[in-house]
Amino acid sequence: MGMTMTQKILATHAGLESVKAGQLIKVKLDLVLGNDITTPVAFKEFNKIGVTEVFHKEKIAIVPDHFTPNKDIKSAEQCKCVREFAYDKGIKNYFEIGQMGIEHALIPEKGLDVCGDVIIGADSHTCTYGALGAFSTGVGSTDMGAGMATGEAWFKVPEAIKFVIKGSLSPWVSGKDVILHIIGMIGVDGALYQSMEYTGEGVKSLSMDDRFAMTNMAIEAGAKNGIFEVDERTIEYVKEHSDRNYVIYKADEDAEYTRTIEIDLSTIRPTVAFPHLPENTRTIDEVGEVTIDQVVIGSCTNGRIEDLRSAAKVLKDKKVNQKVRTIIFPATQKIYLEALREGLIETFIEAGAVVSTPTCGPCLGGHMGILAKGERCIATTNRNFVGRMGHPESEVYLASPAVAAASAITGKISSPEEVAKW
Amino acid sequence: MGMTMTQKILATHAGLESVKAGQLIKVKLDLVLGNDITTPVAFKEFNKIGVTEVFHKEKIAIVPDHFTPNKDIKSAEQCKCVREFAYDKGIKNYFEIGQMGIEHALIPEKGLDVCGDVIIGADSHTCTYGALGAFSTGVGSTDMGAGMATGEAWFKVPEAIKFVIKGSLSPWVSGKDVILHIIGMIGVDGALYQSMEYTGEGVKSLSMDDRFAMTNMAIEAGAKNGIFEVDERTIEYVKEHSDRNYVIYKADEDAEYTRTIEIDLSTIRPTVAFPHLPENTRTIDEVGEVTIDQVVIGSCTNGRIEDLRSAAKVLKDKKVNQKVRTIIFPATQKIYLEALREGLIETFIEAGAVVSTPTCGPCLGGHMGILAKGERCIATTNRNFVGRMGHPESEVYLASPAVAAASAITGKISSPEEVAKW
Repeated sequence: MGMTMTQKILATHAGLESVKAGQLIKVKLDLVLGNDITTPVAFKEFNKIGVTEVFHKEKIAIVPDHFTPNKDIKSAEQCKCVREFAYDKGIKNYFEIGQMGIEHALIPEKGLDVCGDVIIGADSHTCTYGALGAFSTGVGSTDMGAGMATGEAWFKVPEAIKFVIKGSLSPWVSGKDVILHIIGMIGVDGALYQSMEYTGEGVKSLSMDDRFAMTNMAIEAGAKNGIFEVDERTIEYVKEHSDRNYVIYKADEDAEYTRTIEIDLSTIRPTVAFPHLPENTRTIDEVGEVTIDQVVIGSCTNGRIEDLRSAAKVLKDKKVNQKVRTIIFPATQKIYLEALREGLIETFIEAGAVVSTPTCGPCLGGHMGILAKGERCIATTNRNFVGRMGHPESEVYLASPAVAAASAITGKISSPEEVAKW
Repeated sequence: MGMTMTQKILATHAGLESVKAGQLIKVKLDLVLGNDITTPVAFKEFNKIGVTEVFHKEKIAIVPDHFTPNKDIKSAEQCKCVREFAYDKGIKNYFEIGQMGIEHALIPEKGLDVCGDVIIGADSHTCTYGALGAFSTGVGSTDMGAGMATGEAWFKVPEAIKFVIKGSLSPWVSGKDVILHIIGMIGVDGALYQSMEYTGEGVKSLSMDDRFAMTNMAIEAGAKNGIFEVDERTIEYVKEHSDRNYVIYKADEDAEYTRTIEIDLSTIRPTVAFPHLPENTRTIDEVGEVTIDQVVIGSCTNGRIEDLRSAAKVLKDKKVNQKVRTIIFPATQKIYLEALREGLIETFIEAGAVVSTPTCGPCLGGHMGILAKGERCIATTNRNFVGRMGHPESEVYLASPAVAAASAITGKISSPEEVAKW
């Protein structure tokens, strides 16, 4: 029996000719990732193992992005611990603020993942790198600690769902709408411990930023990982960002899937996930009247340059509603600079939005835009669980940057198609 | 006996021909100011008075700048309280994030204070507006509440110190160095409950931004207020920002001062206040080897356009030390936009600094750059008390934007004169 893309990558990294779903295997890691919240815990686990050196000084990346610039004394202490560990162990890819950004936007930008890699990260949205045809998944701090010590991790080989993509997206529709549409269709446990494998002729119409948004939210369908078949666009991206060798894995013709789902991109509408689960989706045509207090554009899901371009296209020469706090987070310093040079930052400030330095910020209820009781936010982030962005009685609506920007202008959840006509 | 500038303003606003130091008077207010920390308390005091309307809807300004964008649920609730109060009472000058900035940079920019005004604000650095020849001072939330209800406040008329300014500043020396020099000379209680009145032919050589930095820190010498004699530069500034009528008050020839201090600007060196008091000053030539972990450029003292220009001049085509977190806070959205259009923001990002949306941030240990135990920061802020920016065992060194920027590059407190030569 044939293997899926994920299974092939795992087999190679386990030194096996083939693997099958359910098999327990030990695989070699190409990258172990941590942030300011998870690394201090992983560091303790690492110390328990009894080794003094990390397995590879260039195959570990540490990005203090969650509560930075330091939110409070506690987060400052966490960052200090992480920094000291990184310097002490000679970890090359430690990124201080000013050199960094949100980990899942930064790692591909720095060329630290390429097609065919196996990556673990102590952050649930580590699944993002599947956009490059890698196997990439979130783990706990214990696995991160062990990974830093041994360069290996244990996995149960996942089953897979095959998504056959066809067609292309309509204007104002993006990868975020596609993944929200999919999660709305299959549910937050619809891909539990499975790979979401994207293939089909429609893939080539999706930009890399569309793909990153889609694999980023694989975990929101319960998936072990999301992965795109590699095409010319992937290779172009990888070559532009990295000089590492890469390997392209294609699923076997006779690979087995738990199911196959066909997605016609041309039929997808701008989509919004209502509180309090990413599966509570409605198309923009079905949202009704939902007034909002805050708009957040950014995060590891949608803080990339195309996201900012999309938001700027809507906000250009317009003003955000004066009752709506609109906060924009370029995901990395490089994206910030690019947006600045393209005039996007100027557009945002002129529109009455504020632009923050890269940080995870309010996405996980961290800082820089926390909600009070009863407040509503539309956000381009990835989770809208109860209390995710602040008070347990606040609400988060997930959407694309275009929908979020349109909503900032009107003060209620709105279609960019309509607002752009103004 | 004649009156000082401050005494003349107070007399007029009390409806009296003259006042003398020590006299208790009730004065009419031109502006009552509050922020997201102090307004909720003032609001409660306001309600106790039993009135339902504020004394004047255009003479109250509320700027949620301290813990915004909302740091946490508590700060979100504070801001919500402030917002609801402002809308409920029809307060015209309520500034939401996106329209705002740090209060003491925003108020003059919005033309809300002019020469001759009496202003109270529930924030100790309200003394900033004396740069425009106004009487302006920090009060408690109770006085703010009463002020919003009645438009009046009680004061004990202050004595005054006369500062006779002569000469002009050397390159790389700014108003911040002057005020640090003065506080170093007279001490943090050197002007206790007195006016610091600046006059002399040297005043005209000081830019408005230099003057704002100097009056901002009057409270750091214990002063009731700081005030500059109005000159053409003041009038030009006021006319550019406001269409309100203004009144120029000059001290009488025979006004009485507790002392007169002559300041020759040309002799002042870049100056740094060492922990843990603003009076612990040393010139840049005396600082020795002080390594730093963080640089903060911004705040109500030094987040204005000239400050950013000065920092950018040092940072242009250079890189900040990779172990130094360098965080830059333009003080208002307008200043941010101006800095962006002048290319300063690009310079900062290219240098490896991060640029935050306007907020008081780490200055008062709020957020966006809090220090861990044992960490050292050089900051353009106004206070370096124990634990001011985070852990009680962290240290803050106060300096100008030029010195802070130079230190960001070298990783230790450094002279901009030297770094600029590189």
